[in-house]
Amino acid sequence: MSDTADRGKMAGANDRHSVRRPSIDDVAKLAGVSRQTVSNVLNGRKDYFSTQTQIRVVAAMEALSYKPNRAAQTLRSRRSMQIGYHMSGEELETVKGFTLSFLQALIKAAARRGYQILVFTHTDEDPLSVFTELTTRGNIDALIISESQVDDPRVRLLARGTLPFVSFGRLAPGLPQQWVDIDNAHGMAMLMDHLVAKAYGRFAYVGAEGDEYWKRERLHGFRRGLGRHGLKVSDDDVFEGSGDAIRDHVRRMLSGRQRPDAIVTSSDSIAAVVVNIGHSLGLRAGRDIAVTGFDGGAMGLITEPTITSVRIPLEKVAAELIDRCQAEIDAGPTGRPGVLVPTEIFQGGSA
Amino acid sequence: MSDTADRGKMAGANDRHSVRRPSIDDVAKLAGVSRQTVSNVLNGRKDYFSTQTQIRVVAAMEALSYKPNRAAQTLRSRRSMQIGYHMSGEELETVKGFTLSFLQALIKAAARRGYQILVFTHTDEDPLSVFTELTTRGNIDALIISESQVDDPRVRLLARGTLPFVSFGRLAPGLPQQWVDIDNAHGMAMLMDHLVAKAYGRFAYVGAEGDEYWKRERLHGFRRGLGRHGLKVSDDDVFEGSGDAIRDHVRRMLSGRQRPDAIVTSSDSIAAVVVNIGHSLGLRAGRDIAVTGFDGGAMGLITEPTITSVRIPLEKVAAELIDRCQAEIDAGPTGRPGVLVPTEIFQGGSA
Repeated sequence: MSDTADRGKMAGANDRHSVRRPSIDDVAKLAGVSRQTVSNVLNGRKDYFSTQTQIRVVAAMEALSYKPNRAAQTLRSRRSMQIGYHMSGEELETVKGFTLSFLQALIKAAARRGYQILVFTHTDEDPLSVFTELTTRGNIDALIISESQVDDPRVRLLARGTLPFVSFGRLAPGLPQQWVDIDNAHGMAMLMDHLVAKAYGRFAYVGAEGDEYWKRERLHGFRRGLGRHGLKVSDDDVFEGSGDAIRDHVRRMLSGRQRPDAIVTSSDSIAAVVVNIGHSLGLRAGRDIAVTGFDGGAMGLITEPTITSVRIPLEKVAAELIDRCQAEIDAGPTGRPGVLVPTEIFQGGSA
Repeated sequence: MSDTADRGKMAGANDRHSVRRPSIDDVAKLAGVSRQTVSNVLNGRKDYFSTQTQIRVVAAMEALSYKPNRAAQTLRSRRSMQIGYHMSGEELETVKGFTLSFLQALIKAAARRGYQILVFTHTDEDPLSVFTELTTRGNIDALIISESQVDDPRVRLLARGTLPFVSFGRLAPGLPQQWVDIDNAHGMAMLMDHLVAKAYGRFAYVGAEGDEYWKRERLHGFRRGLGRHGLKVSDDDVFEGSGDAIRDHVRRMLSGRQRPDAIVTSSDSIAAVVVNIGHSLGLRAGRDIAVTGFDGGAMGLITEPTITSVRIPLEKVAAELIDRCQAEIDAGPTGRPGVLVPTEIFQGGSA
């Protein structure tokens, strides 16, 4: 018998189109145990079987290519098929469409790989203890965090252990570069190209105050994007604040005689505020003023008109996060560098 | 020694203010095993210890009131300390503040009881198989579903097994009455009292089309609430539709001469549409027309003014759901009837 024929035969045994799929009874027969024992092994009722029995049953499953459902897979691989996702205080306390969209994308991307998402939070007294606990409990195969603080204490802790993890958001150079992020500056600069092409010429920027890198990058992209077209931005054209300060500034700016024709904001929620204040002053976004956001989540779809925005492709981000988890679950630390996922422009009615 | 003194002593042993908390070494010493073995038991490295050793270690932990962290708890109780939450297609595909708020409330209510939430979804080919799988895998202690279909196939399946479950939303009489819901009709009728007290007199209703019980109940509450004040509602005053049909109807209604002074809607998102169309016609909600919603999630806070609404107290709903899970995890089927959590009125600026 030739080597090729042999391989053909082996392939046939594993062929999922073979006449009959092996049953639990086939597994029991081959392993020399009862059907109930196979069921106990499958269902993890560990009081009812020895390690030796488990090995025999799993070997029989493998020999027969018994339907590799999650339970059997988990037993064979000692995997939980669960990936943890940490919901930080901010994500738990504020209702942002973005948080939900991200979670949805994560759940779907994980499901495509056969994983479920264990959502957890921390206690305020000891925010890091839950990470130690999850690492030692062994009920997750990998961990995803977001709202990265760059030099993130969670990551400093996780970097000392062996549990694979990935961050949605930049990590400091001293830490493992296990992160996925978007290129805020590039995304914003692309949006400026788009606005300049539409012949807007008097720009103003309204951003959320704070030193977070993504806020700096978005503003930087605004300046750089306009600079590429020879448009200078003075400090008077840039406002950063929060809540009422933003509302007051926008109302003043839209009522003034030197009204800009394009108001670029650092988020869809600020853009929505601008659109609504515009409405109350009789100015329609997309007709009388251009207004843009950043995020492109559901928030921007609620306003009338919808908001033209830099869209964060959360499906791609989620797929990348799960891929990186999977790679490290399968093969240990990959040493891969962080990755920037390109943004898109969402064309709404507001600019 | 008196009985009282004895009890005092025992309490002292468990007192968390006692001088020194028992360490892993104390546990190892009492159990007559190595520190590493205690660590193996704590971390579930089941290849490295026998059942007898596990029993000795756990007994020593209990005798010493060793820090009852989740890992030890899980081992003692054979619980996963995970509660599953099924995200249905609708919840995964549409971005609703409500879905996120509910999930947040659930994660927090679970965390207070020491549980984490395993979020999962189904495959479209075989929507129920994931429930069978979760039941047999034993990695969750209980299961929460929402978006109840009343005679819900998920519940019909779960009712045959032993895994505790609770539904957010009514279940048919033939099924276990493991549900928590709100009283839509009562909540809407209370809102009508509120509006009538504010001297509004010409009412119209705009609702989402569909036969779902909660849509019927909200409309019923509208009619009943006004009826209690001697106000009749004709069929012309009630519109049910979706998307553009609602927008067209609202625009027509607000432009007509017989404009109602209070527009009651079945959801905050419809109310937001009414507020925005009002704006575009120069009518300010809360001044020129009253507009109300139902839900009171973040959606109603985005509009200017914010939306007066029937608020679903998601924290109470989540706490009730987790409590019912906990009760069944601890003691098996309780046979408790379903429970209606009272709604609240959120006073926004729109009515």
